[in-house]
Amino acid sequence: MTNKINITLSTTRKEKPNPSSLEFGRVFTDHMFVMDYSETKGWYDPRIVPYEPISLYPSTMVFHYGQTVFEGLKAYRTKEDKIFLFRPDKNFQRLNLSNDRLCIPHIDEEFAAEALKQLISIEKDWIPSAPGTSLYIRPFIIPTEYYLGVAPSKYYRFMIILSPVGSYYKEGIKPVKIYVEDNYVRAVKGGTGTAKTGANYAASLKAQENAEKNGYSQVLWLDGLEKKYIEEVGSMNIFFKINGEVVTPALNGSILEGVTRNSIIHLLKHWDIPVSEKRISMEEVYQAYKDGFLEEAFGTGTAAVISPIGEFFYNDEKMVLNNGETGELSKKLYDTLTGIQTGKHEDLFNWIVEVN
Amino acid sequence: MTNKINITLSTTRKEKPNPSSLEFGRVFTDHMFVMDYSETKGWYDPRIVPYEPISLYPSTMVFHYGQTVFEGLKAYRTKEDKIFLFRPDKNFQRLNLSNDRLCIPHIDEEFAAEALKQLISIEKDWIPSAPGTSLYIRPFIIPTEYYLGVAPSKYYRFMIILSPVGSYYKEGIKPVKIYVEDNYVRAVKGGTGTAKTGANYAASLKAQENAEKNGYSQVLWLDGLEKKYIEEVGSMNIFFKINGEVVTPALNGSILEGVTRNSIIHLLKHWDIPVSEKRISMEEVYQAYKDGFLEEAFGTGTAAVISPIGEFFYNDEKMVLNNGETGELSKKLYDTLTGIQTGKHEDLFNWIVEVN
Repeated sequence: MTNKINITLSTTRKEKPNPSSLEFGRVFTDHMFVMDYSETKGWYDPRIVPYEPISLYPSTMVFHYGQTVFEGLKAYRTKEDKIFLFRPDKNFQRLNLSNDRLCIPHIDEEFAAEALKQLISIEKDWIPSAPGTSLYIRPFIIPTEYYLGVAPSKYYRFMIILSPVGSYYKEGIKPVKIYVEDNYVRAVKGGTGTAKTGANYAASLKAQENAEKNGYSQVLWLDGLEKKYIEEVGSMNIFFKINGEVVTPALNGSILEGVTRNSIIHLLKHWDIPVSEKRISMEEVYQAYKDGFLEEAFGTGTAAVISPIGEFFYNDEKMVLNNGETGELSKKLYDTLTGIQTGKHEDLFNWIVEVN
Repeated sequence: MTNKINITLSTTRKEKPNPSSLEFGRVFTDHMFVMDYSETKGWYDPRIVPYEPISLYPSTMVFHYGQTVFEGLKAYRTKEDKIFLFRPDKNFQRLNLSNDRLCIPHIDEEFAAEALKQLISIEKDWIPSAPGTSLYIRPFIIPTEYYLGVAPSKYYRFMIILSPVGSYYKEGIKPVKIYVEDNYVRAVKGGTGTAKTGANYAASLKAQENAEKNGYSQVLWLDGLEKKYIEEVGSMNIFFKINGEVVTPALNGSILEGVTRNSIIHLLKHWDIPVSEKRISMEEVYQAYKDGFLEEAFGTGTAAVISPIGEFFYNDEKMVLNNGETGELSKKLYDTLTGIQTGKHEDLFNWIVEVN
């Protein structure tokens, strides 16, 4: 593959949305990155082109067999007007892990990061500067062969699209209420749970719908085998602070390895706060709650960074944490991580990649 | 919704493929059925239009979260030049079951069947007549909202596309070799296994690839919890004949209820051949094999109808059935079912819907 990225600029520019009314994932910038794959050419024709519809025959595999992978990361504008990416290497590494599971050919991670930087550079005026806002980045791969056979596609398209997004918490960081799901299953070992692929999200919709009907904003997933051990919360990883120690479910073959999860473990170790990755049951958490040892719980992910948990609904019982307030550690992690991402806090671990 | 289907005929007609060189799912007819859904309108604008690409923004949900469902059935041309559909009501019923699991609004089953008949009627010249050939029918639904949030789409498109297909067995019905998979998992109870959705097929690709590398054409799936109990074979249901009795895995919450599976159970009961749906472990099947009681095994599905199994690879051992030949019952079931589908055999259970 040639590493030359062809650039076709749009002849028109869209109006940028009002930063105060930004939602998540509804508005997209003027350009996108695209490259294609065929067995004979490998990945070819990398290009930055106007953001526009793609045209696919109804027999295209993406409409039928779910052989897709994606990533999510953000670009931030600092007070000094610098453009920061947060650990983009981790996202492209994980994209290739997802590719392995879905039988999709690897991309060149360094080239993808370079392509992203070029795209961001062209679209830099789209990165909002208001507190909590950022430019959400969605790299994804779809199968593009026109074929109804159940087999890995012989053709693919890799795309990166960009969406300016608002603060996840309109009124500052705020705890959410979580429904512990003991009927539907997100993923099991041997399935697709460790890959960032549509299947896991499609499987989650029904449980999410039920949780919302019951007044809860997200689902806590238990393991698919015994429905006992904690896996994830919604589409985030989860942490508990129990009697001074921080615990998160170990990577067991059905959990997605979050970049935020990894970053939080780094930070906690740096602060000498005990943290362990291990198998943890909902009963243990419940017992800790009853004994007065469950100090905090929070979800972690790119969208919300830290999502403090104010209440669990488990076995017909409401478990209220910290009087439904954001815990001290949750707040400190949120402030530090978002501080690093926006240049307000020292980049302790060399996580920031600046776009020039 | 108005039930009037708008018809726009194509101004050109494609050349029909040579019946002797027909593959599966590569060639499509001149027209397709389409209708759209929005929360305010429900399903609207049902139409038959030329088969052509669809244009979607890269942010369209179908590219990201796998919220898709589909069906597969066939139209047959009889010797008397009649057009037969095989149990289409079952497929549209199942499509709505899949819709439930994926949070997609129900379609009107009767209207969908009527739309299919109108489409088939327009495309009737595309139905091949050579033995074993048919017109494969693919109804499917994709989410069409432009949104990156993880939530059920607010907009959908339902489509039916048609593909003339060749005989599954070029040289007549022929046994396949099956690899018993004990690493990867297709589905578990609480997951999406009972729905016909991309997730299950995406999850299957890696195991299928490994099986092929080892010289096996399909995978036998074991349960995701204990990796002991038999679920499906490839994308088919599975039956065993053990000491005169036919056994198939019970519908346990992770197996797809196949229309062919259901039809075979009907036929066996009609013939007074003992048949039971129950939990069956691979060890039981292996023991029956060792004891000389494993008489036949076969997969069942719309594509191959009956796919006799000549060999299992299990625990590093090859289990050869029936000297690798097609069993007597497999052959009889194949002949009877394909006979009913093509009008050569009496329609015992009122399964045939004729298209005029």
